[in-house]
Amino acid sequence: MDKDQKKIFLIAFGAKLRQLRETKGFTQEKLANDLGIEISQISRIERGVLNTSVATLYSICKVLKISSEELLNH
Amino acid sequence: MDKDQKKIFLIAFGAKLRQLRETKGFTQEKLANDLGIEISQISRIERGVLNTSVATLYSICKVLKISSEELLNH
Repeated sequence: MDKDQKKIFLIAFGAKLRQLRETKGFTQEKLANDLGIEISQISRIERGVLNTSVATLYSICKVLKISSEELLNH
Repeated sequence: MDKDQKKIFLIAFGAKLRQLRETKGFTQEKLANDLGIEISQISRIERGVLNTSVATLYSICKVLKISSEELLNH
């Protein structure tokens, strides 16, 4: 994955997270609290500027009760 | 996910990656080459000492033709 592809991937990943989070009725603040991370981290992931980790991805999926495939294969 | 949980998660994630990589007949070197990353990065992920990114996870799944769920929910 080159730099441009990664940028496109992260923007799409972030948009999908936002969509799924809102569908599940979570605010950024609630998701951040439930994950024990900063709200700014959620915001940066959703804006596609943070290439978050697999451990955070795993935790997000557990809290939102979604599959990682939903987030990765948007 | 606290520090200990993350450590356990990453070790299990790495072991599952190794298992799936070998099942698919890839050496660490071939997977690293196909991903365009260092072999040491694959080795550190598989040893559970590198909390890799979602972009790298996505690329690994595409190259090995596996689902992210297989890696995350071991």
